[in-house]
Amino acid sequence: MPKKPLILVTNDDGITAPGIRTLIRLMNAIGDVVVVAPDSPQSGMGHAITVNTTLQVKPERVDNGPQREYSTSGTPADCVKLAKHEVLDRIPDICVSGINHGSNSSINVLYSGTMSAAIEAGIEGIPAIGFSLCDYNWDADFKPIEEHVTTIVKKVIENGLPEGIILNVNFPKLDGQPLKGIKVCRQAKANWVEEFDKRRNPQGKEYYWLTGKFVSFDDDDDTDEWALNNGYASVVPVTYDLTAKHFIEQLNSWNLND
Amino acid sequence: MPKKPLILVTNDDGITAPGIRTLIRLMNAIGDVVVVAPDSPQSGMGHAITVNTTLQVKPERVDNGPQREYSTSGTPADCVKLAKHEVLDRIPDICVSGINHGSNSSINVLYSGTMSAAIEAGIEGIPAIGFSLCDYNWDADFKPIEEHVTTIVKKVIENGLPEGIILNVNFPKLDGQPLKGIKVCRQAKANWVEEFDKRRNPQGKEYYWLTGKFVSFDDDDDTDEWALNNGYASVVPVTYDLTAKHFIEQLNSWNLND
Repeated sequence: MPKKPLILVTNDDGITAPGIRTLIRLMNAIGDVVVVAPDSPQSGMGHAITVNTTLQVKPERVDNGPQREYSTSGTPADCVKLAKHEVLDRIPDICVSGINHGSNSSINVLYSGTMSAAIEAGIEGIPAIGFSLCDYNWDADFKPIEEHVTTIVKKVIENGLPEGIILNVNFPKLDGQPLKGIKVCRQAKANWVEEFDKRRNPQGKEYYWLTGKFVSFDDDDDTDEWALNNGYASVVPVTYDLTAKHFIEQLNSWNLND
Repeated sequence: MPKKPLILVTNDDGITAPGIRTLIRLMNAIGDVVVVAPDSPQSGMGHAITVNTTLQVKPERVDNGPQREYSTSGTPADCVKLAKHEVLDRIPDICVSGINHGSNSSINVLYSGTMSAAIEAGIEGIPAIGFSLCDYNWDADFKPIEEHVTTIVKKVIENGLPEGIILNVNFPKLDGQPLKGIKVCRQAKANWVEEFDKRRNPQGKEYYWLTGKFVSFDDDDDTDEWALNNGYASVVPVTYDLTAKHFIEQLNSWNLND
């Protein structure tokens, strides 16, 4: 019998979030699971790493599953670095991040701690997937997406991922409807139209809360937004090479040395 | 006479850093400058945004220049959002971020607060450039790169940038040598080989400092690392569409719906 895969599980909502507890349970059926996750919510942390302060790592026992678990004081990207360099004694076969409570489709991939953990794993040479459910509720129902998460993880273990590719998987909120299917997509052109909620503290000093509305500028049917709005899960292959190769030639014509 | 351009200046090293003070001085010669920058260093913050706590904005007067200045309690990406939505009464003609004390070439673009501010501006439809000098020193000598920063900003104001393109500009540490030139590049394949420095606090509890060595796996002469190692400034056009388009077809062949 082949050796069971070693699966690193992390997230950005913190080690006790229902989303990661679901993911851990599903992964225990596939391989040997080690969890290294933030000790508190880290939403919106993007690809932040901790360079100006210290990091703590603490063994945890959140439930009775067979997994080994650690919480850290760091960001999601820190968790992956700590897992690889301090917690694990071999490179994991796969890293799964999530299941995030809320969407990480489209432009949200940039702000997402869930996806940054997965991308960090990708940078470190570990096949990686970020999972998100488009439901910000702490009580979100992960049940209907469980089998699909398992399928996607198994396919990645089976096929591997090329160097530099990470999967960004988002599921729509299903509300009792069956998932229509899984669609390979590109990242939609979309944006947050922000507003700041300006308030005054009891001392009369102004402060702001970031708020805003997500707006898609992209009507094509090959995007993650289209898939999610039409009852499909979206799978976007993501790269961390940000070079806009199509603009290099034009930029050269600017003659920056003149 | 055409109206002077409105220039938004930000950074991740904090509003008092010599790098941003240099950039403000240079921009005052080109246009009307508004500074919205973090009140304290935010290195390594990546594309973090502040969603779980409040934000403060404070008028500042750091020197006697003609610019308007504000510090914020937020991340570099927050600064750009606050600038656009709360501080400025019209969309700036350009956003410049930096000059960072230290490299943001290659994979560092992901961890960089400097570049995330520029990318955030790009997302918001503002032509944007991140500038970095490969010298982590607070006393770094920005003098030799000043004219090149000015040239690049003027070229971007003149030519504009297509939607979704941001420039990542890095300068080598010059140590008295003249800059050999400015090269348009792609992001090098490189990585941090991390180590954690494990210590014990006075109470005997373990903690870690992130440390590591930057290693390039890319010997080609069209990369930012090559340029910087050979005395050139690197200009990488950057996109925030992370879709790995070349992998979509292969991923479809996996039949994720079976």
